Amino acid sequence: MAAPDYQARNQFNKDVILSLDGPVLTIMLNRAEHRNTFSKGMVENLIEVLDLADRDDRVRAVIVTAEHTAPAYCSGADISGGWKVLWKEEAEKEGIHAHRDGGGQLTLAVLSCRKITIAAVNGHAAGVGMTAMQLPFDFRFVWEGAKLAFPFVRRGIVPEAVSTYLLPKLIGSSRANSLLLTGATVSPTSPYISALYHQILPNREDVYPAAKAFAQELANNTAQVSIAYAKGLLQHPGDSAEENHLLDSQAIKLLASSHDGADGAQAFLERRKPKFTDTLSKNSSPWYPWWRRIDVKHRHSKL
Amino acid sequence: MAAPDYQARNQFNKDVILSLDGPVLTIMLNRAEHRNTFSKGMVENLIEVLDLADRDDRVRAVIVTAEHTAPAYCSGADISGGWKVLWKEEAEKEGIHAHRDGGGQLTLAVLSCRKITIAAVNGHAAGVGMTAMQLPFDFRFVWEGAKLAFPFVRRGIVPEAVSTYLLPKLIGSSRANSLLLTGATVSPTSPYISALYHQILPNREDVYPAAKAFAQELANNTAQVSIAYAKGLLQHPGDSAEENHLLDSQAIKLLASSHDGADGAQAFLERRKPKFTDTLSKNSSPWYPWWRRIDVKHRHSKL
Amino acid sequence: MAAPDYQARNQFNKDVILSLDGPVLTIMLNRAEHRNTFSKGMVENLIEVLDLADRDDRVRAVIVTAEHTAPAYCSGADISGGWKVLWKEEAEKEGIHAHRDGGGQLTLAVLSCRKITIAAVNGHAAGVGMTAMQLPFDFRFVWEGAKLAFPFVRRGIVPEAVSTYLLPKLIGSSRANSLLLTGATVSPTSPYISALYHQILPNREDVYPAAKAFAQELANNTAQVSIAYAKGLLQHPGDSAEENHLLDSQAIKLLASSHDGADGAQAFLERRKPKFTDTLSKNSSPWYPWWRRIDVKHRHSKL
Repeated sequence: MAAPDYQARNQFNKDVILSLDGPVLTIMLNRAEHRNTFSKGMVENLIEVLDLADRDDRVRAVIVTAEHTAPAYCSGADISGGWKVLWKEEAEKEGIHAHRDGGGQLTLAVLSCRKITIAAVNGHAAGVGMTAMQLPFDFRFVWEGAKLAFPFVRRGIVPEAVSTYLLPKLIGSSRANSLLLTGATVSPTSPYISALYHQILPNREDVYPAAKAFAQELANNTAQVSIAYAKGLLQHPGDSAEENHLLDSQAIKLLASSHDGADGAQAFLERRKPKFTDTLSKNSSPWYPWWRRIDVKHRHSKL
Repeated sequence: MAAPDYQARNQFNKDVILSLDGPVLTIMLNRAEHRNTFSKGMVENLIEVLDLADRDDRVRAVIVTAEHTAPAYCSGADISGGWKVLWKEEAEKEGIHAHRDGGGQLTLAVLSCRKITIAAVNGHAAGVGMTAMQLPFDFRFVWEGAKLAFPFVRRGIVPEAVSTYLLPKLIGSSRANSLLLTGATVSPTSPYISALYHQILPNREDVYPAAKAFAQELANNTAQVSIAYAKGLLQHPGDSAEENHLLDSQAIKLLASSHDGADGAQAFLERRKPKFTDTLSKNSSPWYPWWRRIDVKHRHSKL
Repeated sequence: MAAPDYQARNQFNKDVILSLDGPVLTIMLNRAEHRNTFSKGMVENLIEVLDLADRDDRVRAVIVTAEHTAPAYCSGADISGGWKVLWKEEAEKEGIHAHRDGGGQLTLAVLSCRKITIAAVNGHAAGVGMTAMQLPFDFRFVWEGAKLAFPFVRRGIVPEAVSTYLLPKLIGSSRANSLLLTGATVSPTSPYISALYHQILPNREDVYPAAKAFAQELANNTAQVSIAYAKGLLQHPGDSAEENHLLDSQAIKLLASSHDGADGAQAFLERRKPKFTDTLSKNSSPWYPWWRRIDVKHRHSKL
């Protein structure tokens, strides 16, 4: 794949602004005048860019954030025209089974990205701004003053974007119930939600810089293939301890035999920083991914 | 279904006292003189009432509580005659496979109730008083002074009532081990158990009122079908992120197309409180429940 | 099985020192001069002893610990010769599928031990010292000053020893990500890891005594078969609430009908300490284990 020109994409993707700084790709939401509500354009942009970042060896980490002066990080779906924004016309014609939730499509794109993913939540967040825009990321940084809302059951709908699967795994189902079944609005320091965050920062303007410094440190000191395989093991650990043992045995054998694995050991013995050079495009094994990717895209019912 | 007369049932169901106040049904345990120990009568009453509440559209929330002056919320099974209280004679005759734990039957009844379920634990709790009487509920409120005990392994038996399935999911298996494998007695503020509780209250007499106010607020501001479907997604999320995406896509399409979903969006735009009118008896989809209900009732071995 | 003479084994197993004190077997790591790094000999010793302890009715609890004056509890794998320490020559010859991670083999041996298992982490821990040497144990005690490191992704490899399966279950995947995907070094009081520990102690020299007193109390006051069956239910709870109900119904019927179950109830009524005498070798049911043990041992490819 030719190296994508993220800067050039800013000319035609208006809902997000991309910038690549060394190994860190930042996706800044660019709908501040609409409280960064989730529009069809924004979802499409995000999914497209996550897919590029996944395949671009230069990118080690992806940060999604907003302007820290925006009224919100993401205030949920843009429902100025009702919930119809949520579905596509073609699916509508084919009946209820054809619908694919846009938030869920973004969630799956974030989960599929083999790079470090970070949500830098430097403003209020509600609805899909709490679900797809946070839960599938590897790490979440948040402003202490953010109002965090899961209002689904107070709007006549249900929690979406794979949140009923992800949130209980992330923080346990006791806390997940306290958030999803109440439609609560909470602060990041609430015991219901604090375990969701890697870091909680007092000032809005410090959230993105903290996330970026964290991303750069990880990019500089971790191995690209290690991160991808570790994410794979965490997302697809197998159904039992024994199955996980077979999977991580295979993964560790592959990586310990790689250039990066060898240099990781050697650097430890020499008390120096390792020089990791392996990339996913050149040095991944055909064994990876070991799980069956499930294609959930809607297909026309005739097919 | 004709609207049940809960008040009338109090004449013949002596082990619990029922009261319906608007959308909130309270089940008060009525065996204070026996420390509210779990009797066959109490289990049967509870299962029967939970089934009625599940089907009665008027009921939005069910609270189980005790008199705050009782010696305990629930001190476990009534074993004055040994463990035999735990099983039925007919099962005894048919051999070991015929046994169905009474606590587990209550747990499954609580899990099956599509309304908001709350345990208002305003006194000490032990054994099944910690398991079936708390773990399957959506929310738990507790008195800070309550002694909470899981004494199973100190009594020669094992944790029951689906607790080895539910507790690790609720608070993680590290904390679940610290409770279930030690037979510990802890306070609600112990780090081993605090995440189990939605709210911990300093005074016994304040536990039920806090739970009731919470129930009424949820009843007034959430949609009946939303709560039922959200509970369904949390209990039956599918085996993968992709499967959950297909399920919540379907659920959100159904609800966003419903009266309550439409009014939820409209009310948000008009900055008013929504008017939710959909009910489970009239407005649920044949798609729900999407999971296969597993019938675990004992059947006579000849069948 | 003849009662093993643990003391006698110390003559030929040099990497660990065994001592049986009443019902508590202590396994002291004996490679302080190598920072207690994980050697092939140590793994083999540990697996062998865990298997003996599992079958020896006298042993109720197993503690793994280090000298509190050692430079570390366990500093990870001994990679003085590179990662090759991780695999066996015969597996190497047969190709990648033949590899079985030594840390994972220890993890499975700890999980299979039906007795109470405790890691008394009285020093720094890294790599496999954090995974196999801690995660599969029922309880972890730790020195507050310990440096705890999961450096895998910073060494070009991946988290091993079933850690990507166990850690998210133990403390939730939000915290597990913060540890495993960063390669972090943290203190036991860090919010990322504190839930992993049953007890955090200020002084190194107090960790093992606290763990031992805890083990002795449990050994004196819990039933052997209860602990084994409760561990079985926690590790193999079934795939649904209903399946767990069928399993715990069976387990509680068996144990409530046993000598220990009967005495547990009787002692409660008589307000005395129970006299538990049932043992796994004499009083376990053929129903246990109810799960299919998966054999993950490598076999020569010709077989």
